Amino acid sequence: MQPPALDIVKHAIGAELERTTYRYNERDVALYALGIGAPADPLDQDELKFVYELSSVGFQVFPTFAVVFSYAFNRRVPMGEIAGIKYHPMMVVHGEQFLRVYRPLPKAATVTSTITIADIYDKGSGLLMIIDIRSCVDDGSELATARHSLFFRGLGGFGGERGPSTQWVLPTREPDFVLEESTHVAQALLYRLAGDDNPLHADPQLVQSGGYEKPILHGLCTMGFAARAILKRCADNDPDRFKSLNVRFSRHVFPGDTLVTEMWRNGDNEIHFQTKVKERAVVGLSHGLMQLRS
Amino acid sequence: MQPPALDIVKHAIGAELERTTYRYNERDVALYALGIGAPADPLDQDELKFVYELSSVGFQVFPTFAVVFSYAFNRRVPMGEIAGIKYHPMMVVHGEQFLRVYRPLPKAATVTSTITIADIYDKGSGLLMIIDIRSCVDDGSELATARHSLFFRGLGGFGGERGPSTQWVLPTREPDFVLEESTHVAQALLYRLAGDDNPLHADPQLVQSGGYEKPILHGLCTMGFAARAILKRCADNDPDRFKSLNVRFSRHVFPGDTLVTEMWRNGDNEIHFQTKVKERAVVGLSHGLMQLRS
Repeated sequence: MQPPALDIVKHAIGAELERTTYRYNERDVALYALGIGAPADPLDQDELKFVYELSSVGFQVFPTFAVVFSYAFNRRVPMGEIAGIKYHPMMVVHGEQFLRVYRPLPKAATVTSTITIADIYDKGSGLLMIIDIRSCVDDGSELATARHSLFFRGLGGFGGERGPSTQWVLPTREPDFVLEESTHVAQALLYRLAGDDNPLHADPQLVQSGGYEKPILHGLCTMGFAARAILKRCADNDPDRFKSLNVRFSRHVFPGDTLVTEMWRNGDNEIHFQTKVKERAVVGLSHGLMQLRS
Repeated sequence: MQPPALDIVKHAIGAELERTTYRYNERDVALYALGIGAPADPLDQDELKFVYELSSVGFQVFPTFAVVFSYAFNRRVPMGEIAGIKYHPMMVVHGEQFLRVYRPLPKAATVTSTITIADIYDKGSGLLMIIDIRSCVDDGSELATARHSLFFRGLGGFGGERGPSTQWVLPTREPDFVLEESTHVAQALLYRLAGDDNPLHADPQLVQSGGYEKPILHGLCTMGFAARAILKRCADNDPDRFKSLNVRFSRHVFPGDTLVTEMWRNGDNEIHFQTKVKERAVVGLSHGLMQLRS
């Protein structure tokens, strides 16, 4: 596949893609939370509240559930074309994810999402596309904004701007908190029922033909495990304190891997973090930053 | 709660309760299969086919999914009254389950179920109610029949018939096959999303007030694990060979327990079985009988 012509790229920047509508209920919310490993202890009411609609401490939506609003867009990515830019689906890498949630998510809602190409950069080795997804409820009030960074390998060199480079420095001191948690061998098969049906996370035959050893865990699933770890250790497991999250998907995680999330406090409301895979001593999530509300 | 008057019982026998309609799709089918522990190995296509709709060997519905058609009835049981017979919901025990499937289950369908009280027996220590649930698809053709045996503790002695006693003898020889499989600590929280939202399987506070140590696994979930074990060991994991299944729920199983299913062949198409809980050396499912098609 050739890099796109510069005028196609210029035309694509700022383009609004289709609007999507997603309707969910308490069952979807619970299924998502189980998909990201909640509850580690089913007798712990503070975790059970994310999966049990009659929880005695009050059912709550785990805040990263808001990424599910983007799945109608995610399902479009394997089709090989976005706003005139053509690519081979196996060459797309989900690079980074940002998510901001404006208020506690309702237990059930109909959400409309507006999808915009915020920017496109020429990184030399590939093309970086920044997609913003704003999600609103019926009355027009905004629930969440997600920002996807998609990297298209081999499509660089079209003459576009290089864009900013990310500033992120791993703290040199020991982490303030560390939480280790196992994923299940069927974790990806469960997580995908939340709405991400990319065969990359399920189909052994297909992924082996694509050069992977076996199906990989969704980056957004690993992100959910990390977010659970941070809320648990740094915010009394109170989802209302979640403001925003950013991560870079550095290395693959496989279902069954043990995740070790290392957290560093920076003041009261900012947590830097990374998530390692214990079995292979690699960093699965880097550039981690969660912002909390006071 | 007093035993019912005999004329109320006589009037209830043969009564048709409400009809229920259940609509399902591939996601529900996959969620159920994950709920009963499939796949133990996500790289094994022969198990993956029950949870992955694009399976290269062909997506198939695990046959015990047909018990889900009964959940509209099951959800009614905690309400404390069936056909004029009143009871305390905590005194009801799901004693036995029979399930017959007439043909391979479609991947998606709308199913109408007719619910009849087939019989009511006076067992002295309690009242035994036999409920038949016949489930048909749109064209009227029958998919499955489920027979629930519900035991109402303390409601015996109303002067009804004692009914037949079950003939089941555990083979004395060593089992022909044994399969051991772990359940997950969150197994009940996952299984309940298939449609059984009884708090007994989720709510630590509620079950402790009812005298249980912690929430228990659904008997029908344990039954699903056993059915998977039998199809795997005795029928090449071919769901089309499933004809019928009977089990008695002998002892509680907790999420996280290890299940050991012991199987005895009786000719080509009949398997006797029981399922033990490894950790506590008790029999969770007894009176197990699966009939296969040739």
